[in-house]
Amino acid sequence: MAAITEKSPFAPARFPTLPDVPGVRLGAVAAGVKYQGRPDLFLAELAKGTAVAGVLTTSKTRSAAVDWCRAVLEKGTARGIIVNAGNANAFTGKRGAEGNKHMVRAAADALGCKPKQILVASTGVIGEPLPGDRVSAAMPALAKDLKPRNWAKSARAITTTDTFPKGASATAELSGKTVTVAGIAKGSGMIAPDMATMLSFVFTDAAIPADVLQKLLKRGADKSFNAITVDSDTSTSDTLILAATGRAGNEPPRKASDKALKGFVEALDAVLIDLATQVVKDGEGISKLITVDVAGAVSKKSARAIALSVANSPLVKTAVAGEDANWGRVVMAVGKAGEPADRDRLTVSMGGVAIAEKGEGVDGYDEAPVADHLKGREVHIGIDLGLGSGTARVWTCDLTHGYISINADYRS
Amino acid sequence: MAAITEKSPFAPARFPTLPDVPGVRLGAVAAGVKYQGRPDLFLAELAKGTAVAGVLTTSKTRSAAVDWCRAVLEKGTARGIIVNAGNANAFTGKRGAEGNKHMVRAAADALGCKPKQILVASTGVIGEPLPGDRVSAAMPALAKDLKPRNWAKSARAITTTDTFPKGASATAELSGKTVTVAGIAKGSGMIAPDMATMLSFVFTDAAIPADVLQKLLKRGADKSFNAITVDSDTSTSDTLILAATGRAGNEPPRKASDKALKGFVEALDAVLIDLATQVVKDGEGISKLITVDVAGAVSKKSARAIALSVANSPLVKTAVAGEDANWGRVVMAVGKAGEPADRDRLTVSMGGVAIAEKGEGVDGYDEAPVADHLKGREVHIGIDLGLGSGTARVWTCDLTHGYISINADYRS
Repeated sequence: MAAITEKSPFAPARFPTLPDVPGVRLGAVAAGVKYQGRPDLFLAELAKGTAVAGVLTTSKTRSAAVDWCRAVLEKGTARGIIVNAGNANAFTGKRGAEGNKHMVRAAADALGCKPKQILVASTGVIGEPLPGDRVSAAMPALAKDLKPRNWAKSARAITTTDTFPKGASATAELSGKTVTVAGIAKGSGMIAPDMATMLSFVFTDAAIPADVLQKLLKRGADKSFNAITVDSDTSTSDTLILAATGRAGNEPPRKASDKALKGFVEALDAVLIDLATQVVKDGEGISKLITVDVAGAVSKKSARAIALSVANSPLVKTAVAGEDANWGRVVMAVGKAGEPADRDRLTVSMGGVAIAEKGEGVDGYDEAPVADHLKGREVHIGIDLGLGSGTARVWTCDLTHGYISINADYRS
Repeated sequence: MAAITEKSPFAPARFPTLPDVPGVRLGAVAAGVKYQGRPDLFLAELAKGTAVAGVLTTSKTRSAAVDWCRAVLEKGTARGIIVNAGNANAFTGKRGAEGNKHMVRAAADALGCKPKQILVASTGVIGEPLPGDRVSAAMPALAKDLKPRNWAKSARAITTTDTFPKGASATAELSGKTVTVAGIAKGSGMIAPDMATMLSFVFTDAAIPADVLQKLLKRGADKSFNAITVDSDTSTSDTLILAATGRAGNEPPRKASDKALKGFVEALDAVLIDLATQVVKDGEGISKLITVDVAGAVSKKSARAIALSVANSPLVKTAVAGEDANWGRVVMAVGKAGEPADRDRLTVSMGGVAIAEKGEGVDGYDEAPVADHLKGREVHIGIDLGLGSGTARVWTCDLTHGYISINADYRS
């Protein structure tokens, strides 16, 4: 097993206090799926009529759980979410699909609903069959543990190589009612060593139909979980679920473009971005959080491709680790993205200070504030293509000896 | 400056003995462009009527030298190649274009030809103007140094962070004549720390028209230099040139599909693959050479994308560094490639031993030979998609603490 290194320098002193979400009860127990002496099985009970939306991995080698969720999400409603940590139940063939069904059935029995009303996720080792009996055995205790405010233990139960549990919340006004958004996440590599995957479960008491919810979640995910990268590797199990119980009693919006949703969308996006950046802040071996802002691209899509090319470049990430204002590597990463770019219009800044402009280094730019900026925990790289109005922001972490130690310095 | 680590474990005891290529004279001198006390300026003189072909970086932020070569290659003939190491003359704006012209003119004067008959490449620091005066000052000595068999010094003159100079040769029969192919290359990251770029110059005395030469080179490059990756980063200056002097006196082929070319193509491909794998074998921080073979993909293009996805995956590369038969990471990298793949048809092997088959781990596979294989210097990963007949082979190196040390453990 990988030696888990010390805590991320971004780990908060304590897990945040999250509010109740009416219509949601949470439970977590130690089922011993793989880990011993820590919660590793999480169950969320959702009130009748809860609308659900999801964004799932696009991997072609996705897990059985992801296939199952896709089918449930088509119906737009669910009564529960069951998640285990320690075993990803991925690439386990037919036994994988069986293990998955076993887990879903056990949760459905505990909640008194149908299996097709249960969303499921598994995270951990790839290629080992899920010990379904341990999940079943733990289910009575798990059902008994259900309560509204059980966030910290739940957040802990879904972690694998994470060095801290992740949670966030916000409130908003929606059609005259106050609504709450709260959620948890896990992840510390896009896929971590053996112990894989990014998972996030977000809950709200707002009344929002499933089709509208899905649109809002997709847009929010593009600005948050789809705008982070640790190592460019994509998990076979990435799962983001948003459940809306409707208990706030607001007038349900009929379209995603409904102006009444403005505050809710802001709250949702804030929670998603908070959780997603917490995942990056727990990136394997992280010493610095890097924000890459691209402007002036020919389109939003092009801006995003360029931002990800920079954020995924091992040479940019190692330069930041070395506190080196190496704008040549940023230029290289822009160039390799395959998107429209003009060498002689490109501007690169670090910490807000322009270092290269219009195709060449800025003569005698003030290095002192840039050097100071690079010594800090959070590094900002700005890129202006000077071609159009497309913008994008992505977050990543630097690439350090810590990453190599976590991922290479052991044998399975 | 980056501390240069010790030699690659793949560095040969000595530079190979390469034959003369009639019609080609080589020279190398210490011009002090950046380095002191070592050759850093290389000139190749090509006989009148030499046909040239080239494969250049697709980077959108390519250097002035790459733009210049593109224009020369359109004419299909050249009289010389001038190359400096230590300064990439990239992202240097108008001064970059001027520095490039200066260098080209100096070489044209020395060889008694027109500037538009000179191919040019620069490798080294990005963003610093090229000191053209040092190039001019060294030109008389460089012209004087020209001789047929000057390979070792020439190969050394184009290196930057390379830990060994790279050369290869082969011979073939072409229309009843024996023809020679010989060349040199440099590179140790796709783009190395500050010191950038992959460059290769290959020469033959075969008589082959430029349009045919270009086709043969493009095909050969796809099997060699376009099939290697160290860190997925693409240089702003990558340049591969093939010059054919025609001195062998063979009947020139009229089409790339001419059957008489079979032996020549084999010799050319062998030299290109030899040089390209030498570049990987000098990959920054390499401890193991990884060959990724993909079969059963829906097309050649799809196979290649999957092979590169695996070869570029930090988690696969760190697993190999850790001598860990982590096939889950290989499955993950196949899945994220975005190409057709069926989890339940996938086979993964290491060192020729099937580890996972048809969607799940092979029960009780013999770990001993796999563990032995992973302890060696050369690791083979085989992937069969089970979908079609598309195949591809790519080479990469593992990702180690050495890579981080070279790229992060210093400040500029």
